[in-house]
Amino acid sequence: MRTHTIDRLLRQAAGREGIISFAGGLPAPETFPHKALALATSEAIEEEVGASALECASPEGRLGLRTLIATKMRSRGAMVQPDEVIITNGAQDALAIAMEVIGALQVQVDRVTYPGALDIFESAQCAPEARLAQPVTYVMPVISNPTGATMTPAQRLRCLGAEVIIEDDAYGELLFSGPPPRPLLADAPDRVYFIGTFSKILCPGLRVGWLIAPAAVRAQVLAVKARRDLQGGGLSQAVVERLLDSPEFEPRLEKLRAHYQDRCDRLLSSLVHLPGVRFQTPQGGFSVWLETDLPGSDASWLYTALENGVAFEPGQFFQADPQPDQPLAMRLSFSSVPIEQLEAGVARLDRVLRRSRSRAA
Amino acid sequence: MRTHTIDRLLRQAAGREGIISFAGGLPAPETFPHKALALATSEAIEEEVGASALECASPEGRLGLRTLIATKMRSRGAMVQPDEVIITNGAQDALAIAMEVIGALQVQVDRVTYPGALDIFESAQCAPEARLAQPVTYVMPVISNPTGATMTPAQRLRCLGAEVIIEDDAYGELLFSGPPPRPLLADAPDRVYFIGTFSKILCPGLRVGWLIAPAAVRAQVLAVKARRDLQGGGLSQAVVERLLDSPEFEPRLEKLRAHYQDRCDRLLSSLVHLPGVRFQTPQGGFSVWLETDLPGSDASWLYTALENGVAFEPGQFFQADPQPDQPLAMRLSFSSVPIEQLEAGVARLDRVLRRSRSRAA
Repeated sequence: MRTHTIDRLLRQAAGREGIISFAGGLPAPETFPHKALALATSEAIEEEVGASALECASPEGRLGLRTLIATKMRSRGAMVQPDEVIITNGAQDALAIAMEVIGALQVQVDRVTYPGALDIFESAQCAPEARLAQPVTYVMPVISNPTGATMTPAQRLRCLGAEVIIEDDAYGELLFSGPPPRPLLADAPDRVYFIGTFSKILCPGLRVGWLIAPAAVRAQVLAVKARRDLQGGGLSQAVVERLLDSPEFEPRLEKLRAHYQDRCDRLLSSLVHLPGVRFQTPQGGFSVWLETDLPGSDASWLYTALENGVAFEPGQFFQADPQPDQPLAMRLSFSSVPIEQLEAGVARLDRVLRRSRSRAA
Repeated sequence: MRTHTIDRLLRQAAGREGIISFAGGLPAPETFPHKALALATSEAIEEEVGASALECASPEGRLGLRTLIATKMRSRGAMVQPDEVIITNGAQDALAIAMEVIGALQVQVDRVTYPGALDIFESAQCAPEARLAQPVTYVMPVISNPTGATMTPAQRLRCLGAEVIIEDDAYGELLFSGPPPRPLLADAPDRVYFIGTFSKILCPGLRVGWLIAPAAVRAQVLAVKARRDLQGGGLSQAVVERLLDSPEFEPRLEKLRAHYQDRCDRLLSSLVHLPGVRFQTPQGGFSVWLETDLPGSDASWLYTALENGVAFEPGQFFQADPQPDQPLAMRLSFSSVPIEQLEAGVARLDRVLRRSRSRAA
């Protein structure tokens, strides 16, 4: 669990006027396709009187949506059939289901990784009848959260050596240039749990993601899903199915990528003037990972930042085993900051870092 | 886990023409408020551009919806505040969260009870660090599934003696006459996990339910929810909030109760002519529980029933510890059978029972 102090600080910041917040890592609300969503929803409700959009269906979810997802996966080189896809409540649900089925005691992760995954892994470590201590690896091969990095072919090959792989593709379709790459799933379908989501490319409030698990555990995956909450939301699934089936879906994705790349470029062009920080240019997604050599606790850094009108998620959020004396690092999400505020946000951050630096000197 | 054979038989039956199915226990699709739903959804999408309906919010869910639910609970005598309510993906998610927080090894249940709860309890028995073997009691005080019974005052008082109580109120608003009774929660807020849902009174495809947990574990409940799937669906919550806030909500509930009571009456008036069966008149809800003295396995009974064009959920579904040689029992759900087919369904059931009886003789 991330610390309560920091959670509380960030929650307070979210409601305060005048804060420029690089926290959250959420998609930009202005990119949500409101009109298409409203149309798809009223169609779903009106055309499916008495049909599955509003009813309870099966734990695997709507066949139409699973078919479209399978097609999407095949276009990336993974020979997926519709009955291999299970619809989940976003990526988090998919990951939790995968972990319950795998039953691992320990999961190997990158040096910094998605905090929601760490929450699950930490709770799983005190888990029930962990069947065996399988070498399980959790990765985001295309656009890691928080670094924005994508695996090199050599890294990809090394990763494929793991016995069980959880492949989190949350940002897979938000690579700034080039088509979404071949997933690990394509090369090891019997060892990969693939996780996808529409939260980043449509909107998170729909809560629609998916899991593709090895054939050998499919029945178990369905049983776990049914036990958790019977099934994903029928109405949301019907809406996503309509949007995904539309000829506007791909052009919209192209626009999304350009939208986020613009913000990323704008943020980076400010960050290069920030002294004493290191960062890597993201290849897509929503955020930049920033490292410094500055000492001090994450909570006190964040406190000072908020006093200066800027927020970010500090390093310990993203680390499996954060050390109390590690230098300051942070994720800066550019995704939902108004583009004209990016420079001002970095200027405030600069003030925070300089002040602390002079205080430390 | 219910047996795979029976699951498979019922799944096949669901897709077959000409079967009159008393299985499922689902609300009648013709009762779904399609127009109101469509309106509420387009309003939610259009009015909340960039607001929480489409975004990721907090694990507890929308404040507006939680406020309305708290008001609803207060009208039943439970002094609930909005921040004591957490929105879940239907009742199943609420129950699973409660069980994860309680961490019990064993749960006391009625002789027959809701199968989805049994699935959770069975999996929890091989659970992780079950903190202590607390005497946990799972009950449906108002309209039990499958029996349709409501607790007497004496039963209610006895139940309140339990150390931890999971109060499943899934059908609480579908009592055929009289207002929804005072929940156990009202008398033991520090020991009761109260579970509610809109799946029975609006539609299951929205996946919106709620959990009210004792104050001492509220933070833990939120952490568990966040770890499971971050939060419930924002769009669904916004839609339910609008419907619940409408002056049409209560009159619609009244109509729903009358709708289901009509079907129930019609079914019972056929069942009284069925020889050798016992049942109790339901006080609300979706189903009747039928018991017989007939031997034979549940799977073979169901197989014969399907051959005769009728389906039901056999007894073992509802029992924590079903015995292989127990006489036939079944849940007959009248909720989603077209009313004009109820007599014909019972006639087919009659044929099945008579044939087997003569075979046994």
